[in-house]
Order: sequence, then structure tokens, then C-alpha cells
Amino acid sequence: MRVIRVKYLDKTFYAQLVDSEAVLCLNKALGLDAPIPLSQVTLLPVVWPTKIVCVGVNYREHAQEMDKAVPAEPLLFLKPPSAIIGNGQAIVLPGQSGQVDHEAELALVMGQVCRNITPEEAPGCIFGYTCANDVTARDLQRRDVQFTRAKGFDTFAPLGPWIETDVPDPAALSVRCLVNDEVRQNGHTSTMIVKPFELVSFISKVMTLLPGDVVLTGTPSGVGPLRHGDEVRVEIEGVGLLINSVEAESAGSDGVPLQ
Amino acid sequence: MRVIRVKYLDKTFYAQLVDSEAVLCLNKALGLDAPIPLSQVTLLPVVWPTKIVCVGVNYREHAQEMDKAVPAEPLLFLKPPSAIIGNGQAIVLPGQSGQVDHEAELALVMGQVCRNITPEEAPGCIFGYTCANDVTARDLQRRDVQFTRAKGFDTFAPLGPWIETDVPDPAALSVRCLVNDEVRQNGHTSTMIVKPFELVSFISKVMTLLPGDVVLTGTPSGVGPLRHGDEVRVEIEGVGLLINSVEAESAGSDGVPLQ
Repeated sequence: MRVIRVKYLDKTFYAQLVDSEAVLCLNKALGLDAPIPLSQVTLLPVVWPTKIVCVGVNYREHAQEMDKAVPAEPLLFLKPPSAIIGNGQAIVLPGQSGQVDHEAELALVMGQVCRNITPEEAPGCIFGYTCANDVTARDLQRRDVQFTRAKGFDTFAPLGPWIETDVPDPAALSVRCLVNDEVRQNGHTSTMIVKPFELVSFISKVMTLLPGDVVLTGTPSGVGPLRHGDEVRVEIEGVGLLINSVEAESAGSDGVPLQ
Repeated sequence: MRVIRVKYLDKTFYAQLVDSEAVLCLNKALGLDAPIPLSQVTLLPVVWPTKIVCVGVNYREHAQEMDKAVPAEPLLFLKPPSAIIGNGQAIVLPGQSGQVDHEAELALVMGQVCRNITPEEAPGCIFGYTCANDVTARDLQRRDVQFTRAKGFDTFAPLGPWIETDVPDPAALSVRCLVNDEVRQNGHTSTMIVKPFELVSFISKVMTLLPGDVVLTGTPSGVGPLRHGDEVRVEIEGVGLLINSVEAESAGSDGVPLQ
């Protein structure tokens, strides 16, 4: 099932994408039982989480290209929900940075409250999967050491185009990033250092994961800079294709719509 | 005005603390106009933000005790909302860490959406102030380099006891931390490297701040370890007194109530 988040008649809800023309409301309490034409809903980012938990250096070849050691334990960091944009929205390059990179990643969306779970319990706690771009101001990441500013700008967390709930094995998917049709990243989740279920278990032993929370699983090698006018695609096998344009910050930018 | 967050008759709302016995509902849409006895409401953590933005090394003497250089720009990091507990709840020492420290801090609660604002615009965007304890697993902080795990455990963000909206100058307050009546930290917000309004402006140029978002302003010198059975107090002049007990993680711990 492909799930999106929409606004319709002033109500915000998750909906099943039936085909290219209609959705079904998944919130039964709203009493919207008939299919709704896709043309009549406003598409929202696929999820509005209480947190986005990410892992750094989770592919060996990416560790090598960044000249970083493979961490003994998963290296966690957070991106703020205010960074989220949806499919088709623009990544805005902030004036503070001279190098903003793409990082294609498989994202998990949690479906249950989970705390201190085992890797075996993880599949039952995951609602589905989506494509993510862990956009990173590389110069600020090096300068600050802490990743928060470099990875926390508005528009730096594109997610979408939908949540795919039917993924037989998240550790068996190709992950690609294309910029203007040029393949920049071409990895496979089978080469992750810490696999998705182990990662969810590790995080849940630190912080309680809540329904809707998003876990980013790290990026394969091939990260590189984005420029004004680029189109960047994150393509994950059996999950979807996330497309975002790239534009330089303008003086009058009002930021992005939130939630 | 002192503001708390409560649950009453299955409704969650912000309320004004009128005196030690009654509150007034601040959400006029709920139609609860009469004072409500404090004994009839369930106290919740004072705020449930979309993010908690923190600044590291914002007092010169704390930089010295941590043997860290004073950063050229504010060093931002995030704590997850799942770490929040309220006044009177227990800080749980995780088994993963051998040293968990207190860090008393002044916290700001945002009242407006703000993006790219000046320091002069900041006071109009701040709803109020509360006491915070930026609880930190010091050993994991050193090991991970990224602060997320060390500062992100459940119960590691005590906030309270209320939001004080009447604070004439947040850069003129004493900040103390007491453990079992021993004064451990005794600082003053006038000695911050980056003052509250400058800090809010800096953050807003990176990420949009939303109503309810919390900004932690750094801790003065004197940080030190907490042990099972301790009682820790964060006392901020003109703001309030936040008291939390400390307990070791038990095998059967179910975590903390959320939201």
C-alpha cells in the first residue's frame, strides 16, 4: 500500500493512494468512505514526526570517501521536523554555506511506540518506508563538528513521494541518487554496516520512538554538491522516486509551508 | 503570569496558575471559564515542542572546565521531545552510561513562528521562560563526539515547573543547580557568550522556530555527576524552581509518560 498525507475539506489525514487519480481516507473516524479524486486534495509532506533520527557513516564506501573511521556503534544525530519538504518542493541553498551536498537514504516511518525493543521486534514497529535526502551543508558540518546546523536548515529533509508499507526486506534494496539525470550515488542497502532492524533496536534503547517518527539509515558513497537549477532524484527499489528542484536562497524567501 | 500544561476532563490545554490552588484555562475555545481546582487537573510537562534547540559552550567558565575552546559561532545541537519530563518526575540513569551530569539552563519557549529574525525582534517571538536541566551522559558525549545519544535519553530534558511570561531581562538572572542541597552550579545569564535574543536570531536563520519550540541557552560552570537517590534542583531567579529525583534504570522500566 502507498500512503500519502493530504489536506481535504480542512481536514488533514493519511490516505491510501488507490491509483494515479484517487485516494482513500485511512482515518475511519472522519467518515470519508468514498474515493476522493487526487485533484481535489492538497498534498502534504508524507509525515510530520516528533523527531527524525539519523545515523552517520553507515556504508563502508561512504566512510572511505569522507575519510572517516567506521564507528564502533551507530552514530546518531537528529534533523528538526522544520527541515521537511515533500516530493516536488524545492531544496533551498542557504547563503551561509558554500557547499550543499545530496545524500540519498532509505527512511523508515515508525508505526508504534517502541522503547528498548530487539531487532526481531522492529518489523512489527515499522509502518513503512520512504525515500529521503539528508541534505547537508558540508562546509558547516566540518566547521561545527556537531551536525545540527549543517543538516538542520529548512528544506534539508526532503521525504516522499509516499510511504510504501509493502517492503519484504529493507536490507535488499538499491538506493540511487541522480542529479540532472547523472547517476551520482548507486548503492545497496545490503551493504549497510548496521541494518535497519538493528538500527531501530539501537535507537529504541536510547529514546522512545513514537508513531510517525522517521529513521534515516545513512547514505552510500557518491555524495556531491547541488547547485541552483539542479533537479535531484532519490530512487529506491520497491519504495519510490523522490524528486526535488534546487534553488539558491533569495533575500525575500519566506521559508516553506510547515506541517 | 505562570503557565502550566494540564489535562482536565480528557482535554489538554495551557492554563494560568492563579495561585497555589486554582488554574484558569487559556484556550478560550474550550469554554472553561471558571477557575479549576489544581487538585482536579493532571499536570503535564509544561510544553510539547516540535524541537528542542540547544547551544553548547555558552559560558566561558564552563568552556574552561570542559577544556573546550569558545566557539566562534553558537554551537547548536538538538534534544528529542521524547526526553522531556516535568517537575517532580525522575531522571533515569541509563545502564549504557557510567557518568550522567546535571546542566542547569535557562530555557526559552517560543510563542510565534519565526524565521530569519533580528535580535531586536526576538522578545516579541518569545512566549516565556522556564528552568531546564540538559542532562548529559558525559562518557557517551566524549565517545560519540555527536551529542545526540549522550543528551537524548528518555528523561534527559526536565523542564518546568511552569512557563513564566514576565521576565524583564533574561540576560540578568542567576542560574543555580543544587544536588541534595549542595550548590553545584552558581552562574548568571549576564555572563553568557551569546545572549538569549542573539541566540534566537541565530537559530532562526538556520531553522524556522514554531510556537512551543524550546531553546536551551547553555549551562554555567560546575556540572557534575548525578547518582541514584539524588534530588536535583534548577533554580532560576524570577523564573522558578525545577526539582527532579534521580534513579538508576531498572530492568523492568517502562519509560516515561509522553506528551
